[in-house]
Amino acid sequence: MADQHAAPASRSGSSAVPALRWEDLPEGPVIVLLDQRRLPVDETELICTDVPALIEAIRGLAVRGAPLLGIAGAYGLALAAVRGFDVEEAAERLAHARPTAVNLAYGVRRALAAHRVALRSGAGPEKAAEAALAEARALHREDAEASADMAAHGLTLLQELLPGGGYRILTHCNTGSLVSGGEGTAFAVARAAHRAGELRRLWVDETRPLLQGARLTAYEAGRAGMPYTLLTDSAAGSLFSAGEVDAVLIGADRIAADGSVANKVGSYPLAVLARYHHVPFVVVAPTTTVDLGTQEGAAIEVEQRPGHEVTELPTTADATGTTASVPVAPVGAQAYNPAFDVTPPELVTAIVTENGVLSPVTEAGLAELCDRSRSGNGMMSI
Amino acid sequence: MADQHAAPASRSGSSAVPALRWEDLPEGPVIVLLDQRRLPVDETELICTDVPALIEAIRGLAVRGAPLLGIAGAYGLALAAVRGFDVEEAAERLAHARPTAVNLAYGVRRALAAHRVALRSGAGPEKAAEAALAEARALHREDAEASADMAAHGLTLLQELLPGGGYRILTHCNTGSLVSGGEGTAFAVARAAHRAGELRRLWVDETRPLLQGARLTAYEAGRAGMPYTLLTDSAAGSLFSAGEVDAVLIGADRIAADGSVANKVGSYPLAVLARYHHVPFVVVAPTTTVDLGTQEGAAIEVEQRPGHEVTELPTTADATGTTASVPVAPVGAQAYNPAFDVTPPELVTAIVTENGVLSPVTEAGLAELCDRSRSGNGMMSI
Repeated sequence: MADQHAAPASRSGSSAVPALRWEDLPEGPVIVLLDQRRLPVDETELICTDVPALIEAIRGLAVRGAPLLGIAGAYGLALAAVRGFDVEEAAERLAHARPTAVNLAYGVRRALAAHRVALRSGAGPEKAAEAALAEARALHREDAEASADMAAHGLTLLQELLPGGGYRILTHCNTGSLVSGGEGTAFAVARAAHRAGELRRLWVDETRPLLQGARLTAYEAGRAGMPYTLLTDSAAGSLFSAGEVDAVLIGADRIAADGSVANKVGSYPLAVLARYHHVPFVVVAPTTTVDLGTQEGAAIEVEQRPGHEVTELPTTADATGTTASVPVAPVGAQAYNPAFDVTPPELVTAIVTENGVLSPVTEAGLAELCDRSRSGNGMMSI
Repeated sequence: MADQHAAPASRSGSSAVPALRWEDLPEGPVIVLLDQRRLPVDETELICTDVPALIEAIRGLAVRGAPLLGIAGAYGLALAAVRGFDVEEAAERLAHARPTAVNLAYGVRRALAAHRVALRSGAGPEKAAEAALAEARALHREDAEASADMAAHGLTLLQELLPGGGYRILTHCNTGSLVSGGEGTAFAVARAAHRAGELRRLWVDETRPLLQGARLTAYEAGRAGMPYTLLTDSAAGSLFSAGEVDAVLIGADRIAADGSVANKVGSYPLAVLARYHHVPFVVVAPTTTVDLGTQEGAAIEVEQRPGHEVTELPTTADATGTTASVPVAPVGAQAYNPAFDVTPPELVTAIVTENGVLSPVTEAGLAELCDRSRSGNGMMSI
């Protein structure tokens, strides 16, 4: 019984519309999401009163981005607990709403662990629900802190790699405050460079098929006053060729134990172009994105999305074209539409995490970085 | 005084709607174009009664594709001559309607040379106009023959490069009968492979921003009964990575004397990916595409197109969004929108022309190939 409804964003027009928040309404708690499919044209909020509604929003990409999916997963678990639904069942369903993003399952696990521990130590359902919610809030806060730490480490790395300053940074998809409790991952580094007066140009890949670059990154860059230029994903080649890219900064949806990076489709071609042109290719992601249980890139399950995202264009502000669309391919055209691709560690110059920078990317180095933050973090499976 | 109007295609639904034809109507001759911006949804013809209308159609991409632009240029010159306009002025304006495509100027020059020769040998304006039209018809016929020759040479090359058969070919943009008097360039080779029972899969890049792959190549592949799959340009990386591409076949808009290939933006990233994955990258183009007057890739002028092609999506069947569109980027977003990119000769495995195959691509070899067809072909400048 999905109960999800839309409302105009309460703070429309300000830069403070958060991507996700927990709200205690008189009729019970809800999770309020900024509907990212409708940006930049409309700032509409989706109000989720239960887990099925939240799963629908996750699958439909109203809420997306690795770190934010973790936060959404934790709050979703808390929502089920506070509203008295079956918590274990909710955890199972939430954790598998999208297959590639590891943070989603991580967030669910964190809140579930807190809930189980509370129950085991004699708490009643209400107290246990409170514990789950407290854990979700903690994750939300930690993610904001991780953003700030990644931004600082990333900026230091750029200063080392590019001592001349005046960076021209190419980015793909959206990795800003719309995916995070803070300023995001790769985008947070670009923003730190901007604050330091060192961002000459942010090149924004539009990121087909759902145009998260055009819709979301351009929106965030514009609001932050950053000098940016939008381009089709294919035009990145011309920029490399003309020597107009100093570094590529991207996020990650899952990083395998060997350092292989699953990220939005189109990341791997950028990694190959960057290598060919001797340009640093830098991945920025919290250690929660690292999945030590997945040994290598080939083992990462890549979500295949519906072909209509490629064969039709939306004719409204809705990015997924679920409301109205115009066909751009013949009726019955078959489409190959992987949501992600996998970049092998040998093409990644560095991975920037909240715990520091790993370069070169090695399995041992990655495990060591993760160890620093994982003592006692409930790595149990569900 | 552009006089250009639209009419439903007279042979709508059949596979025989030609991309361009000359028609003698009672009220005078016209050039009839299949409006490629409206495919695959509508088969609408544009009727051009004068050169300004044709130039508008060329600039607006109702007619596009290197060889077809040459044919359009020649017929346009003939149209000006038959209708009694200033032929030299028409030639000048037509030849520069789009800066990168060398064939356009070539076609104009061919018809203009025939017109001049006729005048010089004492013909009246009517006879000279007939000579220009005869030259346009000859170019049209030659292009169809060149298509067939390229297809044969290209198929032989594939058989040599990939002795196992069952080719999985990746292509970009549209290079079929919509750009040609015959079956096209790269697409004609894929079609020959299909006829030979050796095409396992045609991977069709959608080709942002104007989606010529989705709109036109998928349309042609479907009509020809070829097994094809559409993908976003970025998803090509995943196919290479999975070993699903045996060869890349693309066309060209201009080939410099050193073998550098200007083609639809997105071709260069495919060349880099192909090199990284040891996959042949093959350019198929008639020798009319070779511009020996342009020494190297860096000297090729690349057309920059309007940013709204990137920042807005059309909400009608019109690919250029001139009628109605929806913004997908913030108001005022700046876009980088080159129409073409340039691939250096060292990344090109072979150039297939109507005169044969050049591999490896060298300046001397290219000049020699062109020599075979250029004796007496009016290489004067206008």
